[in-house]
This record gives sequence, C-alpha cells and structure tokens, in this order.
Amino acid sequence: MYDFKRRIYEVIEVSSIGDISSRAYDRLMTTAIIVGLLPLTVKEMNNYLVAIDIFVSILFIFDYAARVYTADYKMGYQNYRAYIAYIFTPLAIFDFLSIIPIIYLFVPVSGFISLLRLFRVFRMLKLVRYSKTMIIIRNVIRKVKSQLMAVLFLIIIYIFGAAMLIFQLEPNLFNNFFDALYWATISITTIGYGDIYPVTTVGRLITMISALVGMAVIALPTGIITAAYMAEITKKKSKYEL
Amino acid sequence: MYDFKRRIYEVIEVSSIGDISSRAYDRLMTTAIIVGLLPLTVKEMNNYLVAIDIFVSILFIFDYAARVYTADYKMGYQNYRAYIAYIFTPLAIFDFLSIIPIIYLFVPVSGFISLLRLFRVFRMLKLVRYSKTMIIIRNVIRKVKSQLMAVLFLIIIYIFGAAMLIFQLEPNLFNNFFDALYWATISITTIGYGDIYPVTTVGRLITMISALVGMAVIALPTGIITAAYMAEITKKKSKYEL
Amino acid sequence: MYDFKRRIYEVIEVSSIGDISSRAYDRLMTTAIIVGLLPLTVKEMNNYLVAIDIFVSILFIFDYAARVYTADYKMGYQNYRAYIAYIFTPLAIFDFLSIIPIIYLFVPVSGFISLLRLFRVFRMLKLVRYSKTMIIIRNVIRKVKSQLMAVLFLIIIYIFGAAMLIFQLEPNLFNNFFDALYWATISITTIGYGDIYPVTTVGRLITMISALVGMAVIALPTGIITAAYMAEITKKKSKYEL
Amino acid sequence: MYDFKRRIYEVIEVSSIGDISSRAYDRLMTTAIIVGLLPLTVKEMNNYLVAIDIFVSILFIFDYAARVYTADYKMGYQNYRAYIAYIFTPLAIFDFLSIIPIIYLFVPVSGFISLLRLFRVFRMLKLVRYSKTMIIIRNVIRKVKSQLMAVLFLIIIYIFGAAMLIFQLEPNLFNNFFDALYWATISITTIGYGDIYPVTTVGRLITMISALVGMAVIALPTGIITAAYMAEITKKKSKYEL
Repeated sequence: MYDFKRRIYEVIEVSSIGDISSRAYDRLMTTAIIVGLLPLTVKEMNNYLVAIDIFVSILFIFDYAARVYTADYKMGYQNYRAYIAYIFTPLAIFDFLSIIPIIYLFVPVSGFISLLRLFRVFRMLKLVRYSKTMIIIRNVIRKVKSQLMAVLFLIIIYIFGAAMLIFQLEPNLFNNFFDALYWATISITTIGYGDIYPVTTVGRLITMISALVGMAVIALPTGIITAAYMAEITKKKSKYEL
Repeated sequence: MYDFKRRIYEVIEVSSIGDISSRAYDRLMTTAIIVGLLPLTVKEMNNYLVAIDIFVSILFIFDYAARVYTADYKMGYQNYRAYIAYIFTPLAIFDFLSIIPIIYLFVPVSGFISLLRLFRVFRMLKLVRYSKTMIIIRNVIRKVKSQLMAVLFLIIIYIFGAAMLIFQLEPNLFNNFFDALYWATISITTIGYGDIYPVTTVGRLITMISALVGMAVIALPTGIITAAYMAEITKKKSKYEL
Repeated sequence: MYDFKRRIYEVIEVSSIGDISSRAYDRLMTTAIIVGLLPLTVKEMNNYLVAIDIFVSILFIFDYAARVYTADYKMGYQNYRAYIAYIFTPLAIFDFLSIIPIIYLFVPVSGFISLLRLFRVFRMLKLVRYSKTMIIIRNVIRKVKSQLMAVLFLIIIYIFGAAMLIFQLEPNLFNNFFDALYWATISITTIGYGDIYPVTTVGRLITMISALVGMAVIALPTGIITAAYMAEITKKKSKYEL
Repeated sequence: MYDFKRRIYEVIEVSSIGDISSRAYDRLMTTAIIVGLLPLTVKEMNNYLVAIDIFVSILFIFDYAARVYTADYKMGYQNYRAYIAYIFTPLAIFDFLSIIPIIYLFVPVSGFISLLRLFRVFRMLKLVRYSKTMIIIRNVIRKVKSQLMAVLFLIIIYIFGAAMLIFQLEPNLFNNFFDALYWATISITTIGYGDIYPVTTVGRLITMISALVGMAVIALPTGIITAAYMAEITKKKSKYEL
C-alpha cells in the first residue's frame, strides 16, 4: 500500500529522465490542458466539445485528488497537517479553481456564476509547471514579487490620480469614473487604442504631463525585473567560480 | 504639557508595532484619504459628498496643525526655525496644498480658481507615506531625481524639436503649436492614440525618424532607474555580507 | 586543385583587410542582397525586375554551392560529414530558403506556394553576417536565445489566456478566436492600433488587468537582454584588466 | 591683442562660477536660442517675428565667428590646422547649419530649399551644451553611439523585412512601399496610431509575429543604454572608493 502511494507521487511529481510513466503522465496532462481550453476558443459549445470537456475535467479531478493524496510526500512531513498545508499552497488553489468549471456542465447556471467557466484559464498555469525552462523566470518573478506588488500599487495610485484629474477637467469624455480609469490605464501602459482621447487644451495638457511622468512609473517594473535577472545570473556564475 | 506634545508626535509619526493609537491613527488617515477622494469620481456633488468632504477636510486641517505643532520633534532641534523649516519640506507643502480645496466648499468660486479643488489629488501622496513597502522605490527615485529631471528636460527638448518640424511640414494637421506638442508627446511616449497622425510623405518621414531616434531617448529613464535599482540591491547585499 | 578550393574559401569567408578579392566579394553580395529585394517593394513585377531577379538568384545559387563546396574548411574536419553538418547549420538553412524563390520565376505557381517568393526576405540575414558591428549583438542574442524562447513561450501563453477571457466576455467584438489572439497580441505589445477595443465594462476591466499584469511580462525580454549585455561588457573589461 | 582673444574664449567657453561676463553670455545665448525658435511655432511669419529672427541670427553669426576665431585655444594647439579641425567637429557643423536659415530672410526661396529654415531646430542642441546636468547623459550616449548605430541598422533591416512581407501579403493596404515602411516603423516602435492596420488573417498573422519578435529588437537600445549607465555609475563609485 505504502509503495503504491510513493509510486503515484513519483509519476505525478518527479520527472526523472528514466521514468517512462512519469514522462507519459506529463505529456497526458499537457495535452489535456491544451485540449481542455478549446471550449474557450469558440462562441457556441457543441456536443464534441462538451464530451471533451467532461473527459478533461475528470482527468483534472483525478489529478487534483492524487496530488492531495500524496501531499505528505511533497511537503516532507507525514501527518494530517501536510494535507491542509498543501491545499492552501498557491498552485493547489489554482488547481482547485481550474476544476470548478466542471459544475457548469451539469448545473444550468447563468449570470455572474457562469463566469466560473473562465476559471479554466487557470489550467494554463499548469503548463508553466511542467516546463523546465520556466524555472529561472519563475525564480526571478518570485524573488521580486513583493517589489512588483508595491510598484503595481504605485501604478494604480498613479492611474487613479490621472483618472480623477481628467474626469474633472474633461467630464464630457466619459460616461462614468470607471471609463476614466480605463482611459488612464490604456494611456499609462502606452497601449493608446484611441477610443477615448482628450480634445480640450487642458485635457491634453494633463494627458501630456501624465504621459511624461508615467514614463518613469512604467520604467519601474522593467528596472526591478532587470536588476533581479542580473543578480540571478551573477549568483549562478560566482557559484561555479568559487 | 511636554509629554502631551511628545505623545501627539508619537501617534501621528512613529508607527511602532506595539503602539495601538499610532496604528489606529494611520488607518483613520488612510480611510480619510480614500473617502475624501470620492468627490473627484463623480460629475455632480450631492449633499452626502459635501458632508463627507467637510468632515475629511477638517481631519486634514487637524492633521496638518498637529504636524506643524510637533515639527520640532521631527526636525530634531527645539526652536522656532524648526517650524519654518518643516513648513517648507516637500511633504508639508503637499499637505498644505491638499487642504486648500476646502475653501471651495464655503466660497462660491468659478473659472480657474475652481481648479484648486483638484489639489485633493495631492492627498494621495500621503498614501505612499503610510505604506512601508514604498520606501525602497522612494529611495531609488529620490536618488535618481536629478538625473530623471535632466532626462525629462532632454525629452521635452526632443518633443519641442519634433513638434516644430512636423508643425512646419504638415501645418494642416494642427490648429496651433500646442497641438503639435501634444502630438509629439503622445508619439514619443509611444501611446499613439491615432487622433492626429501624419498623412503626407514628408510628415511620415519625420514621424518615422523621430520615432526611431526617440527609442533611444525614452530608453534613458528605464536605464537610469534600472541602474539605480541594481546599485540599491548590490549595496544592501554587501552590507549583509561584510 | 586543393589550393583553388582554399582560395574560394578565403574569398567567400575570410574578410582579412589585405585581401581585395574577399572584400570585393563581400560588396558584390551585399549589393546583390539589396538589389534582389527590390521585387518585394513593388506591387507588379516588370521585365527589368525579372531580369534583376534572375541575375541575383544565379549569384545566390553559386554562393550557396561555393559555401557547401568549402564546408570542410569551415567546419574544420575533412570528410563527407562536414558537408552534411554544414547544410543543417541555421545560416545554411536560411541560405537555402533564400534561393528557393527562384523557382517562382520559371514555374507558374499560385496560392499558398506563391508565398515562397517571400523567402527572399531571409536574404537580409546575410546582411547581418557581412556586417562586423553586429557581432556583439549577435553574441548577446545567441547567449540568451533559450531564455528569450522561454519568455516568448510565456508571453504566448499569456496572450492565449487574455484572448480566451475577452473572447468569452465580449464575443461580439470578434469574428473568431484568431481575432481575439490578434487583439491580445497588439494590446500586450502596447501597439494598440485601436481597430479592436473593448466596449463593455467587464471587457474593459479584463483589458485593464491584462495590460497591468502584461507590463511585467513584457519587461522580461528587456530584463534578459540588458542583463546579457551587462555580462558581456563586464566580461570584456575584466579580460583586459586581468 | 592676445589677451583680448583669450578673454573672448573665456567668455564664450569657460563657465567658471566667478566670471560674470561668461555667465551673462550663457544666459544671452540661451535666451536667443529659445526666442529664435519662436518662428517655428507659428504658421505665418509676421513683422515682429522677422525682426526677432534677424536679430537672433546676427547673434548666432557672431557667436559662430567668435568660436572659430578662438578655435586654437579650444583645440589646444596654435596653428591653422586647429581652425580646420574645429570647423569639422560635430558641434561646429551643427552651429553652422543652425545659422543657414538666415538666408531664408533675404533671398525669396521656395520648394525644397525653403526647408533649410528647419535647420533652426539644430540650435536646440546648443541648449544641451550650456546645460551642466547633461554631461553624464551625453557621456553615456557618446560611449554607446556605435552600438546604438548598429542596433538602429538592425532595427531598420527588421522594419524593411516586416514592411516587405506585409506589402506582398496585404498590398491593398498601402499606396506604395514607403507606406509599408511607415506602417512597420509605427508598429515596431509600438506607437500604433491605427491609421493603417492589417485586416486579412495572413496580414494579422505577420503583424503578430513581427510584433512579438520586435519586442526583443526594441529591447536592445534599452539594454545597451542601461548597461552603459551601470558601467558609468560603477566606474564613478570605484574611483571614489579606491
């Protein structure tokens, strides 16, 4: 019984080169993720897609169950706390969210609840988990997560400030304050669709000032990520050199 | 009397973990800032918003008074010069500007003066002051402030140059020179709304050249901020390693 | 006979300063590349362009033949394996692809096959090969190729995710899923033509979130390339200092 | 006589803090540059602007003459070669180009020649010369000039490639190949006005690929400038630490 559990753990988690079952499982799940996203690329579901969706969802439920079942191996300590700790790790939460959309197939839902089907998108995060080349990038992002969050907070404050100014100075441009926020976000990120743009002199002046100051604000994420990358590369090198 | 003044200083400035009053004051002010910005997110003021605005403004006046009153603690030397020195610190100036909009509630103002109500936006800077995660970013920006100013000056010269060229070569595109400046700013910052764009061959040529050269110009802020970030991180590391 | 082969190798590959033939060959090929691209800059071919195209294509065929013929010198070992190894190097593959368009001149092709004529664009890569200033940049890009590929993979996953969400929430905006992918790519890269943009509140919200998160995603290539550049410059310096 | 020449040199070039004449000259020239650009900010010249233009132009002619006259001090060796060497320095060439527009006031010119009046824009480069904060940025840009040129060459090749592909695949979008180049430049630099955008599937596909690959291409200038900035800062620091 014990060996059986260890075997499951090895198949779903450890991807050693010699282990054919483990690699086959990786490929099965990768395929399931990609195929399982097909329903999100069509406007109307058809019977084939519903069948695929049910099949893929069952796979994900089994995968989630197997991961929780072998959580004590993963977490490294053998008691009931390992299961609870595992369930609340970010990856396990994303796994759980990504199996929720299956209820959409059985229960006729509508309105806001029907948006749960979009949780399917979270399955994509599994793709990154199975890819080995992503590890450096994930390390970099994980290391600067709190700094990126602080910058995001700063950018959001900046967007709110710019939105308030333009909303007061060019109220005719917007139906409501949310539209002003949308305009500010699209402008600060330099996308600039051109669906909303200032027409009065004072509105254009505010836009120009917020665009110029915004250049420093949006340079922050690039600066943080580059610095973290440099540190990661330097660290690796000195490890080999010492 | 002396202890009372020190107590006020501790509550409004020092945010030690054990001090409940200080933390409560932080939360009160953060809430007041956010609630006090609501009037900027609507087109028409109503009675509720006016009431909120008066209440919040009184809070900010008391806050400003308390900060000036305890300026001698903050500045570290006990005489009248501390008060004057404090009043002219950038943060104190922003505090003062952010309480100006209250006059808008009592005196019926119009035209350019009514724009004073937009000074409310300066209150947002207080949000950054209360956040601890912002300190690194503020340090980085403060350290490169003079360089960023020099770059901003360069970018503005570049924008004026591009605006003059296009204004002479495609005069029909613009009502006045300010419009050309607006176009150049929106183009150089790569927002590109598309409300104004060149249509003649020579105008497009100037746009292409200014866009390509502009890539190096707008890479400058990113370069400066990244370099400052790298230096900040390296400094921190070597501090711990030595 | 042997000396003749070495001479060909020297002329087409080694660009030592004293060798007039080699430099003349470089200039001939550079001219041929630029002239040979002219047919791609017109809507309708004429007799002159066809003549130029035939002449240039023959030059490229000879160039390719000469490169394969002298592959044993280039690869450094003298047996038949050198030829096979050379043919499958990326540059040799691009050389081969760039001579394919000649068949378009003799065989009347249409539909998808006629797109082969666009392989002419691959000839431009030869321009980079002949330029000496490109070597540092090529080294940097080569060194971070696998990391850039991983980032590209991440960006594509991100684009697919954003496209799926917007496609489900604002289906009226798009004819098919490919249009949603096109919209997501143009938005994430901050081009933002404005031909497709969200109009509903939920669509705009998704756009705003994906734009803000996307800022970190598109900062990754900049970070990687900057870090590689720093390492390249530091390496060079310490080489001279030691 | 000799002392008089040295005095002129000191006034126009050396800006030591104690020298009132030198600082006054700096301010005079800065004002002249700004005032002299006013004619480029209006659509129709009037008598006042013509008067200003003549006055400013005479100032620039005297300035240019004085700089050439004292070139032997500047270049550091006292013979006729100093004058010739000075005249062909980039700054002296820009000075010369910026005084050309004066002929426009006396000779009635039209067509292409009338564009010479735009050389006035070159006077702005003098603003950077008089500013002391620009020295670091100028050093950085000067140091990476050859690399930025190589990158610009690469970007232009890339733009040509993308323009050729789209021009062949969506010929109806463009009047001529120049328009395709314009589209490619505006897209690669992520401005994206939206005046020209792909409508067919294959055109959109090419746009998406070129946008994604282009992200790495446009990250190059940022990478180069950031690396140079880092090196400049590190160099400065180690200078003080040693």
